[in-house]
Amino acid sequence: MFLTLEGGDAAGKTTQAIALERWLTDLGRTVVRTREPGGTALGVEIRSLLLHGDHVAPRAEALLYAADRAHHVATVVRPALERGDVVVQDRYLDSSVAYQGAGRVLDPEEVRGLSTWATEGLLPDLTVLLDLDPAVARERRGDRAAEDRLEAEEDDFHERVRAAFLALAAASPDRFVVVDAGRPAEEVAATIRAAVEPRLRP
Amino acid sequence: MFLTLEGGDAAGKTTQAIALERWLTDLGRTVVRTREPGGTALGVEIRSLLLHGDHVAPRAEALLYAADRAHHVATVVRPALERGDVVVQDRYLDSSVAYQGAGRVLDPEEVRGLSTWATEGLLPDLTVLLDLDPAVARERRGDRAAEDRLEAEEDDFHERVRAAFLALAAASPDRFVVVDAGRPAEEVAATIRAAVEPRLRP
Repeated sequence: MFLTLEGGDAAGKTTQAIALERWLTDLGRTVVRTREPGGTALGVEIRSLLLHGDHVAPRAEALLYAADRAHHVATVVRPALERGDVVVQDRYLDSSVAYQGAGRVLDPEEVRGLSTWATEGLLPDLTVLLDLDPAVARERRGDRAAEDRLEAEEDDFHERVRAAFLALAAASPDRFVVVDAGRPAEEVAATIRAAVEPRLRP
Repeated sequence: MFLTLEGGDAAGKTTQAIALERWLTDLGRTVVRTREPGGTALGVEIRSLLLHGDHVAPRAEALLYAADRAHHVATVVRPALERGDVVVQDRYLDSSVAYQGAGRVLDPEEVRGLSTWATEGLLPDLTVLLDLDPAVARERRGDRAAEDRLEAEEDDFHERVRAAFLALAAASPDRFVVVDAGRPAEEVAATIRAAVEPRLRP
């Protein structure tokens, strides 16, 4: 079973991935908790190219993320699924599509095409979208002091990311569950468990 | 004008690129001589990931080469062409297609599709294929002593690369000129000049 967690920064993806891992482990499952980008040694190096290098051309950036994904799926995710493990993953192709859609530089469907090729079409069994108002996310990050410096453009970008994620969820209702990430973490975790439980194969 | 040089190792691509650059410079042209992979600082880092890292999944490798190409075209090749410079380039997308075709892991047409997306469809005005018998290439590299150690499989691979390049040239006769790279370098250079001259815009 392949589970992914999606959403903007500070939506609680890591917290919920850890909670999910514990619950599944308690149920006797073997869990591989991982993430993209940077879920492999190669991925860490690719990520550092993107973060610390000079300006990277937009298509090159999209191809580097797709390369990270291809390597991660081939060497971590698929082997785990073939062993029968549960994979709990922080971010996957929906992040690439949503952020490109919000960034408005590249065609998000072309970016999806790269990921589809990179992964030989591997889709999650379930994707949990942790939906959060960007203003709340900013508070959680403790950016109150920095808030005045944030440009309207940046706020607008996070709104577009949120809208893009919600549109992806609406387009694939069988694969997605949308969870209100503004509620307390334990309530969010219970909602996620309720969504995962009926899909667990014995 | 965008000129590329293609062919196997030791076919004389670098020698001919330098000769072409000198001739074009003497004609008063501004020339950007470059190469792939590794024609940018980012490309050098990508290349070192590929050469010095652990095993890289085949799709990840193809995506990394495409990322190198996307960045190189966006930041070096297109700006040079827009300035009206002549770009003389050692290896381009035909290398990716030919080597993938010979390697028989990925579909070469899918690999071409990545490069087409990476470059927004930029094709050379002229591609010089330096065609050389792999046995002669091996002699040139001074591998005589190592020859016995070479496995039949490796010889076979270089034959397949050569055949793949020739097939690409046959499929695009307007773009390609095939030059017998077994002749002396000055004769090869004269043949290349004769192919380039009528295509030079005033």
